Amino acid sequence: MCMERSQSAKMEELVSALLESYEQHAVISNIDSGKQLNREMIIKICDMVRQVLFPGYFDYKRLKSGTIRYHVGELLENISYELTKQVQKALDYVGQEKNIPTGENQEKAERIVEAFLKRLPWLRDMLAKDVQAAYDGDPASFNTDEVIFSYPGIYAISVNRIAHELHVLGVPLIPRIMTEHAHSITGIDIHPGAVIGEYFFIDHGTGVVIGETTEIGKNVKIYQGVTLGALSTRGGQSLRNTKRHPTLKDNVTVYSGASILGGETVIGEGAVIGSNAFITSSVPDETRVSIKNPELQFKVRGSVRTQELGQEGFFNRKEQD
Amino acid sequence: MCMERSQSAKMEELVSALLESYEQHAVISNIDSGKQLNREMIIKICDMVRQVLFPGYFDYKRLKSGTIRYHVGELLENISYELTKQVQKALDYVGQEKNIPTGENQEKAERIVEAFLKRLPWLRDMLAKDVQAAYDGDPASFNTDEVIFSYPGIYAISVNRIAHELHVLGVPLIPRIMTEHAHSITGIDIHPGAVIGEYFFIDHGTGVVIGETTEIGKNVKIYQGVTLGALSTRGGQSLRNTKRHPTLKDNVTVYSGASILGGETVIGEGAVIGSNAFITSSVPDETRVSIKNPELQFKVRGSVRTQELGQEGFFNRKEQD
Amino acid sequence: MCMERSQSAKMEELVSALLESYEQHAVISNIDSGKQLNREMIIKICDMVRQVLFPGYFDYKRLKSGTIRYHVGELLENISYELTKQVQKALDYVGQEKNIPTGENQEKAERIVEAFLKRLPWLRDMLAKDVQAAYDGDPASFNTDEVIFSYPGIYAISVNRIAHELHVLGVPLIPRIMTEHAHSITGIDIHPGAVIGEYFFIDHGTGVVIGETTEIGKNVKIYQGVTLGALSTRGGQSLRNTKRHPTLKDNVTVYSGASILGGETVIGEGAVIGSNAFITSSVPDETRVSIKNPELQFKVRGSVRTQELGQEGFFNRKEQD
Repeated sequence: MCMERSQSAKMEELVSALLESYEQHAVISNIDSGKQLNREMIIKICDMVRQVLFPGYFDYKRLKSGTIRYHVGELLENISYELTKQVQKALDYVGQEKNIPTGENQEKAERIVEAFLKRLPWLRDMLAKDVQAAYDGDPASFNTDEVIFSYPGIYAISVNRIAHELHVLGVPLIPRIMTEHAHSITGIDIHPGAVIGEYFFIDHGTGVVIGETTEIGKNVKIYQGVTLGALSTRGGQSLRNTKRHPTLKDNVTVYSGASILGGETVIGEGAVIGSNAFITSSVPDETRVSIKNPELQFKVRGSVRTQELGQEGFFNRKEQD
Repeated sequence: MCMERSQSAKMEELVSALLESYEQHAVISNIDSGKQLNREMIIKICDMVRQVLFPGYFDYKRLKSGTIRYHVGELLENISYELTKQVQKALDYVGQEKNIPTGENQEKAERIVEAFLKRLPWLRDMLAKDVQAAYDGDPASFNTDEVIFSYPGIYAISVNRIAHELHVLGVPLIPRIMTEHAHSITGIDIHPGAVIGEYFFIDHGTGVVIGETTEIGKNVKIYQGVTLGALSTRGGQSLRNTKRHPTLKDNVTVYSGASILGGETVIGEGAVIGSNAFITSSVPDETRVSIKNPELQFKVRGSVRTQELGQEGFFNRKEQD
Repeated sequence: MCMERSQSAKMEELVSALLESYEQHAVISNIDSGKQLNREMIIKICDMVRQVLFPGYFDYKRLKSGTIRYHVGELLENISYELTKQVQKALDYVGQEKNIPTGENQEKAERIVEAFLKRLPWLRDMLAKDVQAAYDGDPASFNTDEVIFSYPGIYAISVNRIAHELHVLGVPLIPRIMTEHAHSITGIDIHPGAVIGEYFFIDHGTGVVIGETTEIGKNVKIYQGVTLGALSTRGGQSLRNTKRHPTLKDNVTVYSGASILGGETVIGEGAVIGSNAFITSSVPDETRVSIKNPELQFKVRGSVRTQELGQEGFFNRKEQD
């Protein structure tokens, strides 16, 4: 019993130390705030929206045309109810921080969710084209259903297009929670602010980073490890809301590991950026940019042969598909 | 009440717009089709197979030799039942697309699953060697159980070896769903078509891409960010079924960030490919390939010193482990 | 019935073949061993510790100051009970391998868990600074709560700081299971042995590798694809416990894709390592290291222009943010 009391006293002490810390570091405490965004529910909403957008692919039961109306209606009711709650909480956040009364946020949340839901058919237009682009562009794909079931690039762009609509409608926090969830699932990190045209395809995808103010045209293809990023100016928060990330015009291809940086960097129509290129200024239309093949050394059991590929290396430079 | 009716009318409109879209974009609709692959069940089957292959590591209860027979028997019954259902559905897919009657697919699915299950002891032979290779090759590993519990490279190769068996037996869609799930968990993207020899080890692994027609010999070690990919010929679907990815012979090591591309590219026995090398043609046996160290500039508070490592840089080039 | 008997006979055969394999490859069998670490419980414990460290962010209910004491107390009781069980099992592992009697491991586990829990307020000190570093360093961040809810770098460093405490207290296996789970979620691979100072920020993060014996000072910032790794000496297990990974002093920045390798490599205070640099020897304080921009070729419809950036390329070299 003495042991037990001592255990309990230790626990009391520990709890008190933590409560003190909760007051000391308010920046990582969320008590009495009503700021109770439900991260898991936000991810679930995102999944339900994907069920509506790709009917019959992520459902457990077989969908039938005779009853599909009720199935979709019920899903939409759920999405509407749960999303409105989360959007309202997210709006309250901003209000609290700016000391704005939060009373009107329920109505505002309802208007936002209604506007979002109206965009779903348009999102399907976009995603049908993305799926087609993935199938057409990848010799390893078996059919379009395989693309929908398993391609990380399709998962990432689906979630991004959903999150981007909410971002445009002025919803804070929720879009980024959705895209960072997709980042976790796919290794593809697209900020919800990025503007992305139709027929977009990311192949393999792990390590791709697409920054907040990136603009991407139609029919663009990107491979694993590509960064569309900002140039460092060490400005941190002072740079918020400036265009820091590049613009890619229509029909651009960017091969694996390339970095394209800077808000004034524009990659012209039809340009092709080679693997591992490091680009910090604009590239004209219809231009193919390659890095010189790094000089290779071949060392075979003592003997050494160095291969300087020189200019020829440029012309023969081949890229990954 | 008026409000409610208006809400309900809006919802009706929205549902109708979506149903229209379901007809318009049939490529991303799966209604009345019976093509009801269950992605979550396929992932669960994959987990159950891993439980059989690594007994006692991913179970909740302690396995005892006296009752292990019943435990394994029950797992196999479950796997057999659920996998047969999914394989049959996957076969029906192909049949529907080619207008082949699907009546015989149940029997075909049963034969395939039976053949798959017979391969499990052989898969254990392979995986025991993979675990040993991971432990032997990594100074940070504590013991072989740590490798089994936590190494992403072991997770990825386990799922890949399972998926590859199904792929060889002619099962569509399911193998890729399994390997893309492993890609999501590990950042390692191995197509189920790749042929991989024994004692295979991927260290760290994030960003690794191994394409469909890659062939890998015995005792090969690969680090994070390595691509075994195709050369672009922009052929898309026209390239299906051609050998587009490289061959690595026995005892090859490929360091982080290297790319090896092309179906005719053969990396010879015992060759070592250095970090960030970009290889598009064959490398002889027992050859060490390095890229010249990129020239570095050191800028210390105003003063600048450039270091041209030159040829010496080659000889001293050290690689990551 | 004949069919059924044949099916059942086949299953018997298969089970027997697997049981044989379980004996043959003992290295991947865990039967009768009592070595029953519960991977899912370990991940759940890690999540509960994060709930204590970030109160109100990952809970389903709104936390109130009037009742927070009971909420935290209950969480800590659960963590203490479950973690003690897992730590004891992990200690038994080592004991079994070294043939040490395992009787004392329960008491030892209790002492370890008590010492671990006492460190929680200190962990909050560290994490409050990490969150601040992430917010200050990223113009795309909306507020500190967004950082906590969604930044993979914060997830990874939270789990790493938890796992590192257990590692320092001599707990085997469990810390690595935690950090490899975080690796799976974030693409950021930090070994629990790494020693990391305050105000640490990893941006984007996919592909980051930080090895076991790495030491990192205060206020260090690292981007996606950075490796802090070992030099190969092909020693495998013989290298265990030697310092194989680099040291980064205070205020170091390492841009995307850079590799810093070797146990004797020290990056001096305030140094900046440019994108894709490959560093295998020490860098003095306050030094900016860049690689020469790889020579670029621009090919526009037939005409070719090569841009040799030369030394100027060094001075204008801009980095990703």
